[in-house]
Amino acid sequence: MATADHPIGIFDSGLGGLTVLRAVHERLPGEDLIYFGDTARVPYGTKGELTVRNFASQDAGLLVGLGVKMVIVACNTASAFALDHLRETLPVPVIGVIEPGVEEALRRTRGGPVGVIGTSGTIRSDRYQQGLREGRAGFGGIADERILVRECPLFVPLVEEGMMGTEITRLVLGEYLEPLRNARADTLILGCTHYPLLKEEIAAYMGPQTELVDSAATLAEAAEQILVAADLLRTESEREGLLDFHLSDIPWKFAEIGARFLGRPIADAKIVGLDEMEQAGRTVAKGTS
Amino acid sequence: MATADHPIGIFDSGLGGLTVLRAVHERLPGEDLIYFGDTARVPYGTKGELTVRNFASQDAGLLVGLGVKMVIVACNTASAFALDHLRETLPVPVIGVIEPGVEEALRRTRGGPVGVIGTSGTIRSDRYQQGLREGRAGFGGIADERILVRECPLFVPLVEEGMMGTEITRLVLGEYLEPLRNARADTLILGCTHYPLLKEEIAAYMGPQTELVDSAATLAEAAEQILVAADLLRTESEREGLLDFHLSDIPWKFAEIGARFLGRPIADAKIVGLDEMEQAGRTVAKGTS
Repeated sequence: MATADHPIGIFDSGLGGLTVLRAVHERLPGEDLIYFGDTARVPYGTKGELTVRNFASQDAGLLVGLGVKMVIVACNTASAFALDHLRETLPVPVIGVIEPGVEEALRRTRGGPVGVIGTSGTIRSDRYQQGLREGRAGFGGIADERILVRECPLFVPLVEEGMMGTEITRLVLGEYLEPLRNARADTLILGCTHYPLLKEEIAAYMGPQTELVDSAATLAEAAEQILVAADLLRTESEREGLLDFHLSDIPWKFAEIGARFLGRPIADAKIVGLDEMEQAGRTVAKGTS
Repeated sequence: MATADHPIGIFDSGLGGLTVLRAVHERLPGEDLIYFGDTARVPYGTKGELTVRNFASQDAGLLVGLGVKMVIVACNTASAFALDHLRETLPVPVIGVIEPGVEEALRRTRGGPVGVIGTSGTIRSDRYQQGLREGRAGFGGIADERILVRECPLFVPLVEEGMMGTEITRLVLGEYLEPLRNARADTLILGCTHYPLLKEEIAAYMGPQTELVDSAATLAEAAEQILVAADLLRTESEREGLLDFHLSDIPWKFAEIGARFLGRPIADAKIVGLDEMEQAGRTVAKGTS
């Protein structure tokens, strides 16, 4: 049985979710955090629904096996395709990035169009669109005509290659975002953990009319509320929480990409083998975790 | 025991290897071909050596389990990191894309610099460079100073997004290839199965001084020679060989990307589950296949 002293688990398809880990660590500095990045199989955003759900089950199963008291799905694509499934199968609370993003967008919009940008999987899952239509946390839903979506598949590789601020990225930005700027979106959800690294460029392109929504801070707040409600918040906060990193692969540009998202180099990442991943998925599937 | 009537197996990290399948099918139209694309875990080019070797063992193990008489490693990164390992462990002949590429470049160079472009993994493996230094198939090796390499990580996502012929691709091309053009490379190895789709643009950028080497045709020729030597060539060639497609995921843009590489839509792809992949890797590791 999980207690308040157990760590919080956070997983992502790769290293982009470190932006979420940072936000959670800032809001809940006393909590121990375990991060798992599925760097061997990244990206998830181009892959099919069933594949993403299988991967997410393994990722979350691994964290549950490490004794976490809560699972945060930092990956938008995994949140889109696997959140319901994980909530049904895991023995701990599960929170994703889409619901907080929807809530924040509904809080900020001033009656104009709301844009959502993300991977092919995230956009095609229709989850952001559903959330915006239905409303959330006391905010009413908005009409379908006000919801504008764009798949931005090149943003992830551009960020991973450190191409922020280049002419190439400016051209790609224009290619993807022109319809949203022309429609005068008043709010734009950054529906992928890589996109906060393009925040300034996106803001400059969209102009002052558009507020950008990065769900990391809202998600950290929601995580705190759930822990409080479940009596799982760590109250003895004298020491700073430990950060523990697990990855399924050390990619060639690991140090560079990791530092880009975390703001500093990752120390001591542990490598998780393919067989362990497979085993973690099976354990959760059987409900024996 | 494999006989001439058995199919040839071809695997790649994703769908790029379909360019190799086309070349093999053109040269050996009577042979049955089984293609496996590891679309659930694509790309390999950014991932570490051990991960790529594990994936390649599973991919090849799957093909051996399907009864192939030969394995063609159509992925450059997998050829770089796993070819020796596969030759040691598999019960059938194995051929990769790097050796034919090296041979073709040595045949074509006119004494000037030889360029190699590929993924981070392929370039950092040093396999093309080693091959060029050592020489091959009667062609002498060339001095290290004549070998110029560039990692081109954005080429794969640009091709997958169908951005050929755009201003964005022209800028990225210039970013990567300028040093090779300035050095007046007389030969340029396209060291990734995605790059043949950028062939015209690369040729236009590099100018007439540079000959481009796409190893698919040379590889098909080498495969034929090995089959002849092993008495495994299919001689009864009255009927056209069957093409059989297996994938670990159906990505969102499957139809579009598949047709781009194959030249026509892929009919009836079979999906291979994660557990089957894991099992295939174990079978080969034990040498029981």
